[in-house]
Amino acid sequence: EGGEPQLYQLSKAGKLCVPAMNVNDSVTKQKFDNLYCCKESILDGLKRTTDVMFGGKQVVVCGYGEVGKGCCAALKGLGAVIYVTEVDPICALQACMDGLRVITLSEGITHADMLITCTGNKNVVTREHFDRMRSGCIVCNMGHSNTEIDLASLRTSELKWHRVRPQVDHIIWPDGKRVVLLAEGRLLNLSCSTVPSFVLSVTAATQALALIELYNAPAGRYKQDVYLLPKKMDEYVASLHLPMFDAHVTELTEEQAQYLGISKHGPFKPNYYR
Amino acid sequence: EGGEPQLYQLSKAGKLCVPAMNVNDSVTKQKFDNLYCCKESILDGLKRTTDVMFGGKQVVVCGYGEVGKGCCAALKGLGAVIYVTEVDPICALQACMDGLRVITLSEGITHADMLITCTGNKNVVTREHFDRMRSGCIVCNMGHSNTEIDLASLRTSELKWHRVRPQVDHIIWPDGKRVVLLAEGRLLNLSCSTVPSFVLSVTAATQALALIELYNAPAGRYKQDVYLLPKKMDEYVASLHLPMFDAHVTELTEEQAQYLGISKHGPFKPNYYR
Amino acid sequence: EGGEPQLYQLSKAGKLCVPAMNVNDSVTKQKFDNLYCCKESILDGLKRTTDVMFGGKQVVVCGYGEVGKGCCAALKGLGAVIYVTEVDPICALQACMDGLRVITLSEGITHADMLITCTGNKNVVTREHFDRMRSGCIVCNMGHSNTEIDLASLRTSELKWHRVRPQVDHIIWPDGKRVVLLAEGRLLNLSCSTVPSFVLSVTAATQALALIELYNAPAGRYKQDVYLLPKKMDEYVASLHLPMFDAHVTELTEEQAQYLGISKHGPFKPNYYR
Amino acid sequence: EGGEPQLYQLSKAGKLCVPAMNVNDSVTKQKFDNLYCCKESILDGLKRTTDVMFGGKQVVVCGYGEVGKGCCAALKGLGAVIYVTEVDPICALQACMDGLRVITLSEGITHADMLITCTGNKNVVTREHFDRMRSGCIVCNMGHSNTEIDLASLRTSELKWHRVRPQVDHIIWPDGKRVVLLAEGRLLNLSCSTVPSFVLSVTAATQALALIELYNAPAGRYKQDVYLLPKKMDEYVASLHLPMFDAHVTELTEEQAQYLGISKHGPFKPNYYR
Repeated sequence: EGGEPQLYQLSKAGKLCVPAMNVNDSVTKQKFDNLYCCKESILDGLKRTTDVMFGGKQVVVCGYGEVGKGCCAALKGLGAVIYVTEVDPICALQACMDGLRVITLSEGITHADMLITCTGNKNVVTREHFDRMRSGCIVCNMGHSNTEIDLASLRTSELKWHRVRPQVDHIIWPDGKRVVLLAEGRLLNLSCSTVPSFVLSVTAATQALALIELYNAPAGRYKQDVYLLPKKMDEYVASLHLPMFDAHVTELTEEQAQYLGISKHGPFKPNYYR
Repeated sequence: EGGEPQLYQLSKAGKLCVPAMNVNDSVTKQKFDNLYCCKESILDGLKRTTDVMFGGKQVVVCGYGEVGKGCCAALKGLGAVIYVTEVDPICALQACMDGLRVITLSEGITHADMLITCTGNKNVVTREHFDRMRSGCIVCNMGHSNTEIDLASLRTSELKWHRVRPQVDHIIWPDGKRVVLLAEGRLLNLSCSTVPSFVLSVTAATQALALIELYNAPAGRYKQDVYLLPKKMDEYVASLHLPMFDAHVTELTEEQAQYLGISKHGPFKPNYYR
Repeated sequence: EGGEPQLYQLSKAGKLCVPAMNVNDSVTKQKFDNLYCCKESILDGLKRTTDVMFGGKQVVVCGYGEVGKGCCAALKGLGAVIYVTEVDPICALQACMDGLRVITLSEGITHADMLITCTGNKNVVTREHFDRMRSGCIVCNMGHSNTEIDLASLRTSELKWHRVRPQVDHIIWPDGKRVVLLAEGRLLNLSCSTVPSFVLSVTAATQALALIELYNAPAGRYKQDVYLLPKKMDEYVASLHLPMFDAHVTELTEEQAQYLGISKHGPFKPNYYR
Repeated sequence: EGGEPQLYQLSKAGKLCVPAMNVNDSVTKQKFDNLYCCKESILDGLKRTTDVMFGGKQVVVCGYGEVGKGCCAALKGLGAVIYVTEVDPICALQACMDGLRVITLSEGITHADMLITCTGNKNVVTREHFDRMRSGCIVCNMGHSNTEIDLASLRTSELKWHRVRPQVDHIIWPDGKRVVLLAEGRLLNLSCSTVPSFVLSVTAATQALALIELYNAPAGRYKQDVYLLPKKMDEYVASLHLPMFDAHVTELTEEQAQYLGISKHGPFKPNYYR
């Protein structure tokens, strides 16, 4: 999302001419910005644009990564009936264990009241799906740029577009069916909602620390490659944000740190721990 | 809320000159309009006015009737830490069993990030409480008219009011502390949020049926008194709204209806059942 | 459940020769014993007998009264996918708003991993349903005596019963399909689980107070009829159980009590309030 | 937990004489066995041993890794009031955002009804904590071997141990205070509960595939080091378990796979993705 696949491609091709930090995959980004930000934004973005009621509504969420998990958690809290589509069997199995039905979009599309894309992929919702939606279905994107919904397929002469409010279009079929498209398929959380400043602070602190680390690092620590943020910095960012919640972290005793084979000041987990 | 206490007082005093229906205490009003409407509105009203993040926030909810229950359910779904105040030990015990700490407002006020009144009472939040709030605390009312917060006590010369947006006032203490007051203590869900048209349809249908019943009833069925809506009409209103959810009700067999001692077309429950 | 329909029938027939209290419909019984007890028992009863995993399992719950609501709340907490059957459109609409799909048993039976009856009715699950279940489906009753499941229809020569553990029978079809029946259709929470002593204390206190009230009441207060427990006693029972949770109830000021038109010591709600 | 720290130590010391797979940190182990297994077991283990009611109970959970997260999710579903202790600021911040208060054990111990350790650490609960618990507090371990609770400190002459049932000891203070210790501090889920066979199947399949991979790998693929299971195998294990839930995974189109820069048959995520 933050361009880190491009970085890895440059690196593989031997064309990366400076060291780079993949901040997007640090824990404080992946597990906070993506998960909790979307959990906070999804209800807000939908309410501000459509005033929709969530209780009892059938919602199809495409993708059960961090973004999808956040959306589903919020929607479940307000009593929506949720269906998930996934390509990755691991995320699909997580959805199952969390009590969500995993279906294909073709199976779920005819009874959906809302459809939310969170895949990072392209053309996840196609004209064929749109043609089978019921009238009034709300379609929006929480995932990635504006590629997830195949908008081009809707720009045809037999469909009428009617802008009912900023960020809200009704797409009208010849038989009168209306589909409600939000933000023309761009990111709902950026277009129609606000983003919690607290989570932005977590992300911004992570980015700032990454830059400081790259700048301050002794020659040779980082080569012309892509690195994950050192765990200890990730932990430092988190610790800076705990006082906001009056949270009190426990300090390890020397004996405990020794038992765990770590320093009592962290890092507390291996680098790949999420 | 709908003036039904006044009806009962008129009836007791022998001054009610027509039959009346207490629609407010019918199940489809009490358990739908109050509970689910507030569950849908509370997050929306707070987000639209303040963009506040809910995760990890300490929220004091005054009152655990239907409105309070709805607010708490929604807030819990987004990860708030909730404390409840109650005067009625039955509602207090329900809050406990639902995993909420029951405290007095004096105990909880100093660490509250948000304060929501849902009591139907007056002067639940007083100047003494305001003086002990921390800076940034958001105060709003979901309960009843505009009596729950003692606003008069805040209209004093040493406090400055600053309107930062429509419906949002900062009240500023001499030391710089700011409390965020929404809708000047009027109902948040009516002032700063929308109300689901579906739930309004349930309530409106209940009211219309009550009027039709009073108009059509044979002479003598209703005297100059206050009545609850007949259970069967309550059930009829509900049945009209089920197709919206593709819900399929089960029909009793004759044998089952006989076993339960009821008609297979309802009413299915005694009148006081909630 | 506690025989109160019989009391009302006796009363109607003019055959009740003493005053009676319908304790079963007091709030502390209806909303605590039925709701919270079943919420605590359902997972326990199923785990102790079958060691079943709940995550991702499709469960059909027949009946969404207090017992069904309690079962669904617990099952949702562990990630089950829940379907509800209902005859009463009000309870059906509540299930919808709570995010549960309302279906008929015929629609849901073929994909159920578990089936739980909570209706108070008879023959809710019939041989026709059993014949369409998939192998391994677990069937149990949380509702009412042992009438909800039509056991007689399973006592036929072509089906084999195999007792695999106390309270657990496998019923085996000629093709090898097995259905797991718990407690021979008797109440799971009484047969295979324990009941929280705390909730029993609430119920027992309610019953004791009802007896004391009947015994102490001045002549003429109660006639040969069925009465609901006075609200004030219901509230007293609740107040006795609050210290267990370190819960602190708020006291009304004189001004507030006057505003609400009630005594500051209760009762706080009308008698039919639930 | 599975001895993987020892493997890494051997590897660092140059003493590992064969290639090894760190199966414990594969996603299907970390995110399924640890999280969902404990979510399923915690209520069961406590109910079978103590018949405790969860609604309204104050529970301190030490550690908010996968095990702690699973325990908290289950306890929240049944209405417990949960406090978390953590040493890692990232996990602490997750607990905050999930609506749990993060405290030190010293702060929370005096009002705990239950105390559950999930840290993987040693001597997390000490005699000093035990001395400050209230009578009736239940103490158990879900984390790691039997080191988390300092049992030695309880084996002193002034404290009496009374075995009330298998796996349940009352430890009695001179003033009559009783603390309920389960399984003598060993793992509750192994000692007092069952483990879902489904999750064991996921874990066992992961282990078997790791062995097959090591056996079949062409010479040179693995050196004398510790490896994470290739993502594709992790995904394969998950896909084998989806039919159990009638889950239908979506297949990528060629165009989509190309857009994402991955094969349409996976692996779908980078190796460190969790």
